[in-house]
Amino acid sequence: MMRAVDVITKKRDGGELSQAEIEFFVRGLTSGEIPDYQIAAWAMAVFFQGMTDRETTDLTLAMARSGDVLDLSDTVAMAVDKHSTGGVGDKVTLVVEPLVAACGVPVGKMSGRGLSFSGGTIDKLESIPGFRTSLSTAEFKRQLREIGVVLTGQSANLAPADGKLYALRDVTGTVSSIPLIASSVMSKKIAGGAQAIVLDVKVGSGAFMPNLAEATRLARAMVAIARRAERRAVALISDMNQPLGHAVGNALEVREAIVALRGGGPDDLREHCLEVAAYLLLLARRARTVKAARVRVSAALDDGRAWEKFRQLVAAQGGEVRAIDEPDRLPTAHLIEEVAAPRGGYLAWVDAREIGMSAVDLGAGRAKKGDPIDHAVGLVIHHQVGDKVQRGQPLFTIHANDAGRLAAARERVLAAHQFSRERVKPLPLFYRVVRSHGK
Amino acid sequence: MMRAVDVITKKRDGGELSQAEIEFFVRGLTSGEIPDYQIAAWAMAVFFQGMTDRETTDLTLAMARSGDVLDLSDTVAMAVDKHSTGGVGDKVTLVVEPLVAACGVPVGKMSGRGLSFSGGTIDKLESIPGFRTSLSTAEFKRQLREIGVVLTGQSANLAPADGKLYALRDVTGTVSSIPLIASSVMSKKIAGGAQAIVLDVKVGSGAFMPNLAEATRLARAMVAIARRAERRAVALISDMNQPLGHAVGNALEVREAIVALRGGGPDDLREHCLEVAAYLLLLARRARTVKAARVRVSAALDDGRAWEKFRQLVAAQGGEVRAIDEPDRLPTAHLIEEVAAPRGGYLAWVDAREIGMSAVDLGAGRAKKGDPIDHAVGLVIHHQVGDKVQRGQPLFTIHANDAGRLAAARERVLAAHQFSRERVKPLPLFYRVVRSHGK
Repeated sequence: MMRAVDVITKKRDGGELSQAEIEFFVRGLTSGEIPDYQIAAWAMAVFFQGMTDRETTDLTLAMARSGDVLDLSDTVAMAVDKHSTGGVGDKVTLVVEPLVAACGVPVGKMSGRGLSFSGGTIDKLESIPGFRTSLSTAEFKRQLREIGVVLTGQSANLAPADGKLYALRDVTGTVSSIPLIASSVMSKKIAGGAQAIVLDVKVGSGAFMPNLAEATRLARAMVAIARRAERRAVALISDMNQPLGHAVGNALEVREAIVALRGGGPDDLREHCLEVAAYLLLLARRARTVKAARVRVSAALDDGRAWEKFRQLVAAQGGEVRAIDEPDRLPTAHLIEEVAAPRGGYLAWVDAREIGMSAVDLGAGRAKKGDPIDHAVGLVIHHQVGDKVQRGQPLFTIHANDAGRLAAARERVLAAHQFSRERVKPLPLFYRVVRSHGK
Repeated sequence: MMRAVDVITKKRDGGELSQAEIEFFVRGLTSGEIPDYQIAAWAMAVFFQGMTDRETTDLTLAMARSGDVLDLSDTVAMAVDKHSTGGVGDKVTLVVEPLVAACGVPVGKMSGRGLSFSGGTIDKLESIPGFRTSLSTAEFKRQLREIGVVLTGQSANLAPADGKLYALRDVTGTVSSIPLIASSVMSKKIAGGAQAIVLDVKVGSGAFMPNLAEATRLARAMVAIARRAERRAVALISDMNQPLGHAVGNALEVREAIVALRGGGPDDLREHCLEVAAYLLLLARRARTVKAARVRVSAALDDGRAWEKFRQLVAAQGGEVRAIDEPDRLPTAHLIEEVAAPRGGYLAWVDAREIGMSAVDLGAGRAKKGDPIDHAVGLVIHHQVGDKVQRGQPLFTIHANDAGRLAAARERVLAAHQFSRERVKPLPLFYRVVRSHGK
């Protein structure tokens, strides 16, 4: 008879766990038959000893199968999905999903809420009055079939083993283990029915991966899981040292996404969205090259089709279309203050994590699960690393509903900007692409 | 406010925990405020990252103070104690405690029960009809004052944090961590009031330490704790590749101890007991050198004083003195079979662990805590590594109460003996002495 302590000891001593051992562990985790303290010790052993791609894939599949597994084969030709590892000002999903849907690639996505410095798509969407983010599986499928785009919270009982394991990792110092992060992400994507996944792996101060080496390890681990699990995947490793676009905070980000969906907005945001969307078309086999895909997605952004698809999405999920047609109707903060640059020079650093935490302090995010949030508040950061700024020029704008919090944000966000007398090179948008070589 | 997850993460990343962090953790462990899964993750992090001597001492003292702490200063001039890390045929305590008491060094010891291949002093003593092994603290002190020797089970609430931590380590693959083993042993000794401790660290197939390097690390860790905690300690690293003495099994070992206490018995057992007893005299400052101490303890063994002290001990704790005066009255097995050497040659290996497990199979020990045991059964191993044996000569004797188990023991113990045509060197009794340089 298999014993949990033997599986722990094997991993502790650097052994490779068999599929049967991993399935035994995930079964015991799901049912509660293996107590939390054994799961915790095992997770710490994995932290130190790692896992092979084979083990990580077995863990992913076992967790994916621990609850409901969505089958979208009756709904779409190929279920594509996109996942970001989390960042500051990351409103890419809001733009990309309608954009690829407008290009004929149906995309249904279950998103999460924000935590700590990282925002969440569901919170952003809830800035739109009436927008429903808890669709049933039947509603999800119907809408995906009818308009080709869905953005909802997780409703089905997807990968409950991952949920339990993540909750334990969070309190036992075992979050930052590459195989555990990779299997957590991929188990939910696979349980959600995805056949092809574009992974946006963020790296930098405002990301969970602190450096390119770690981000690359995570990207490779996830792509390896996809290959072994017979899914298509590509990982884009993108910069998150500074916020993406200008807006940080829920309604502020929805406004910026609306501008981007209408063909405008910050260059970095547009470029980021086009790249992710192009890879989605590529994985969905609607284009043969990234270049060809880029032509198609650019056109859909510029000719109004992406915007129209977003309007359909909002309408389908009960949101007030008028609030996105006239974004002044979205939640608005009472106190708006523009802060000027205290000196001139080239921007050398615009710290995404500090800005993300400052937005949380304003009320835009939550320090812990379940905290309420204020959709109106946040920050608009006017410049990026490499920009030349004159003293007295607007540096950022604070949207607050509390004067004390506004003052605190002013100090913190000012300190998050570093200036240089020397010219500074802009940060790249993407560092690396990690592709699968699967089917 | 201190958080358990931060302490885990600090240790995970190789940090040195402060005294406050360790005390916080042990307090939370004792009270249950820190849940088992955080303790388990922390223990696994310690397994991988180790602990400094300072951390290990702080852990030891925090665990020692988690329950009752015996104060023997009103009872004896200096409280000495002896601890064996566990082995096969280890009846040294039965001989040494009366021996040093006979030399004027009072010694009260709380012992444990056997587990797996390793026997326990309390089980052995319970072979003597009537012998009480659960004295109250008041009885313990009174007897120690009156006759200078006590051998009992753990009655007071000593180091409950260690008890809880050990139970968790046992099921989470974190038993074999040197700082955790060292602090477990030392916390109980310190809670038991010991001022000076002789540590008998066993190494070999029948010990928990598999090799000399590990045994030395454990010995050094325990001696370092003693130094920092202002206790005197010396560790003797002794062989446990073959059983100590001939007898393995409770009443059989008591019989062998009786012979040794009367000045006879196997040479290795006598030599081992004299050495341990001499170091106890040395630590108690009743001798200036090991050599001088050896002269005193040898005399007490040979002139009947040690034996007389053992009789007093048995009488004081309610045991039938007649049963030790006439050891045939001790529990005796129904089936006794002498097994002859299947071939001649030099004994190259007499596997202590196999013999210990075989005794467990006969009923002399327990596979898991709380199993009942049969005091009568066991094995007598007639030869040791290096002995020249003729084919057909008695090799070992089985004492059993079940024919099937007897047959199984015959095979297993035969296989535990390996022969060589070449001359084989006897195993050393002791490998190394690790001394404290404390006060």
